[in-house]
Amino acid sequence: MGDRGVLTVISGFAGTGKGTIVKGLMEKYDNYALSVSMTTRSPRPGEENGKSYFFVSREEFEKTIEEDGLIEYAEYVGNYYGTPKAYVEEKMKAGFNVILEIEIQGARNIKKIYPDAVLIFIMPPGADELEDRLRGRGTETDDVIRKRMDRAALESDGIEDYDYIAVNDEIDKCVSDVHTIIEAAKMRPQMNEEFINKVREGLKKKASR
Amino acid sequence: MGDRGVLTVISGFAGTGKGTIVKGLMEKYDNYALSVSMTTRSPRPGEENGKSYFFVSREEFEKTIEEDGLIEYAEYVGNYYGTPKAYVEEKMKAGFNVILEIEIQGARNIKKIYPDAVLIFIMPPGADELEDRLRGRGTETDDVIRKRMDRAALESDGIEDYDYIAVNDEIDKCVSDVHTIIEAAKMRPQMNEEFINKVREGLKKKASR
Repeated sequence: MGDRGVLTVISGFAGTGKGTIVKGLMEKYDNYALSVSMTTRSPRPGEENGKSYFFVSREEFEKTIEEDGLIEYAEYVGNYYGTPKAYVEEKMKAGFNVILEIEIQGARNIKKIYPDAVLIFIMPPGADELEDRLRGRGTETDDVIRKRMDRAALESDGIEDYDYIAVNDEIDKCVSDVHTIIEAAKMRPQMNEEFINKVREGLKKKASR
Repeated sequence: MGDRGVLTVISGFAGTGKGTIVKGLMEKYDNYALSVSMTTRSPRPGEENGKSYFFVSREEFEKTIEEDGLIEYAEYVGNYYGTPKAYVEEKMKAGFNVILEIEIQGARNIKKIYPDAVLIFIMPPGADELEDRLRGRGTETDDVIRKRMDRAALESDGIEDYDYIAVNDEIDKCVSDVHTIIEAAKMRPQMNEEFINKVREGLKKKASR
């Protein structure tokens, strides 16, 4: 049952450790695939093209939109972020749970197109912890951190739009919590239509004897 | 997070092994409590009053209905089945996932009163396997088995009303599947309102500095 993979949307405030969770899922289990997003933002130190993101120009991004090659896209702090379509479909068909690490606006769009997608919001244990983690990164100025915290306050109004929350207090626990959510999602009736129909037809055949 | 227990509704065709699954959950994990139903049907060999069911007269059952002492009740093959209210509320508050093993009609009623309840339908691996199991019980006549199979064919139209299905092919696997579903259900936003609000308020306080 549930041979098709689950489209797994992972969101969370900047600094919540979404990237680490996603990396943990990929390392710990063999049935996850990461959807690589396309973006017009500049790479951070250490980010590789085609691995963290496909870094493209504004012009290239808009061409992909026109060609209907994206599941969803959104503009966020002046940059485009989007999800290339073909790769996601192919991987789900092959049984992989495809992870999309996207912003809240994109997550809502995904749910409209893929109602079976599972939306997970990664939470920090608290507001103080989030600020500490952003400072701990050491890559951003005070002004940027301030902006990210303000953004988090705004985004927090959308948490209830998600199907699940997972608290990133202890990383291994959070990775296994996300996996539990996805394993459960595979047992929803809509993921097992073929099996249910087979059993139902068998029962009806016996009943009409 | 998720301190309150989950109201867990378990249904399935007669002979699917619901009882064994429930017993397995109670033995394997320490945070499940079984809601003991009230019924007017006669005890099967080995069934104890107050353990499998509270076996009561039709008169007693109707008195409990009048006193509003049941979460739900239904009539099934000429007998009443119902769920006493006080016990369920108390156990959930204490953090136990309260299991209701009820028929499909009762399950639908539960969802109306407790929208956060998780409805799980235990499936046999196939129609033939179900018939084999009913015969294997050795407690029912051919006529009763026939009626149960006919009933299963009818009930199979309601499977999609359930939140999840779990296939009872291998008992230990099925018990752990049901547990996975319940663990995931605890991570739904509506089960963590207090925590989400605490984090949100912390963020908004920082943003307004």
